[in-house]
Amino acid sequence: MYGISVGPGDPGLLTLKAKQILDSCDVIAYPVKTAGEGSVALNIIRPNVDVDSKEVREYVFSMNPDYAEREKGWKKAYDDIMDTLESGKSIAMITLGDLSIFSTYMRIDQMIKSKGYETALVPGVPSFCHGASLAGVPLTMGEESLVVIPFNTDKYKTLENALDNYENIVVMKAYKHVEGITEMVESKGYSASCITVMSNIGMEDQYIGPVIKGRGYGYFTTLLIKKEEKK
Amino acid sequence: MYGISVGPGDPGLLTLKAKQILDSCDVIAYPVKTAGEGSVALNIIRPNVDVDSKEVREYVFSMNPDYAEREKGWKKAYDDIMDTLESGKSIAMITLGDLSIFSTYMRIDQMIKSKGYETALVPGVPSFCHGASLAGVPLTMGEESLVVIPFNTDKYKTLENALDNYENIVVMKAYKHVEGITEMVESKGYSASCITVMSNIGMEDQYIGPVIKGRGYGYFTTLLIKKEEKK
Repeated sequence: MYGISVGPGDPGLLTLKAKQILDSCDVIAYPVKTAGEGSVALNIIRPNVDVDSKEVREYVFSMNPDYAEREKGWKKAYDDIMDTLESGKSIAMITLGDLSIFSTYMRIDQMIKSKGYETALVPGVPSFCHGASLAGVPLTMGEESLVVIPFNTDKYKTLENALDNYENIVVMKAYKHVEGITEMVESKGYSASCITVMSNIGMEDQYIGPVIKGRGYGYFTTLLIKKEEKK
Repeated sequence: MYGISVGPGDPGLLTLKAKQILDSCDVIAYPVKTAGEGSVALNIIRPNVDVDSKEVREYVFSMNPDYAEREKGWKKAYDDIMDTLESGKSIAMITLGDLSIFSTYMRIDQMIKSKGYETALVPGVPSFCHGASLAGVPLTMGEESLVVIPFNTDKYKTLENALDNYENIVVMKAYKHVEGITEMVESKGYSASCITVMSNIGMEDQYIGPVIKGRGYGYFTTLLIKKEEKK
């Protein structure tokens, strides 16, 4: 059983090892939140892997507030993986970005390993490294530290601590909070120009640049805050 | 001019895009601290790129405490890059891991761009993502934050803040400080089993596992601290 990171969106950022394993495995699986919604990870590998020659499986890991419902999805995926492995087929599950960062794949790896099957994990390029390259802005240099904060829930208290104590901050899933975060950065005496917006990278409405007040941003919005310029 | 991340050490973790650019460029350059010391990054690409068919250049970026000496190395590299580009040749400079994390390449990118030449940056797999995959330990999950601290200078104050306020901490260049860091983790009420050591990955004396008291660790030692288990 392989856990394969496919990188942040650019098909060229697939690693040689990921391609080699995907080329040779029997089954490619991908996780979704809702049945049939499609997979960004699958689209990333299509230009370099002959997906149509493989068995492709979709596993639904819902974000249902009812945990019993969520567990049903896990059990179904787990049973299918075990059946596949017991039939002698190899299976690779693909994950956007890098699988050690905000991915649930590690849980599957641990379950399968506990049953005595061999597993392997292939790391990938995280989305924030891609964004930094596209923006031409280093994430961290020399002796500086870096904080990565997911803003899917309100994290202003964490952000305040980060602004007080660390040189570089990556805020993921910032889309609804860009204005609030900018206000906090400015309230700490830094210029809004410390913030680089990396929004919907690789999509039609991709935006990389400074914060524009009043503009809305897409769901996949990451902010890079470098505490260089005081107001 | 291309800035190419070659990943953390496993040649298979080179990206398809990095390989494609390295295959087609005229000159491959690599940075060293001391002339003739050799390049880990160059060894990483050798199995997949025909390095011997290229012009290969070494640029010395010393860590000399005399900044004037350091600047001499920068100027020499910069002049050579400009000569190469003006002669119509394409040049790719390779960087270990990902170039937005603790790399000085961004500075070269900005210099060359300011002269009107086109540049491109190719992100890569950072060493801590590789370590997490090898250890089978997630760096961060769900709504948790992550702090990355380089310990090349004493950073105990930063580490203390991180232990008080964040769920996951990566400590890079921890080798001389493993014992001190373990003591601080324990003094905060957490078990030493919260720490995964990832030391000299890919080398003969690679070690991935829990902290062993009294053992020494190699220069390339990264710690992953997950505040899960209270003492």
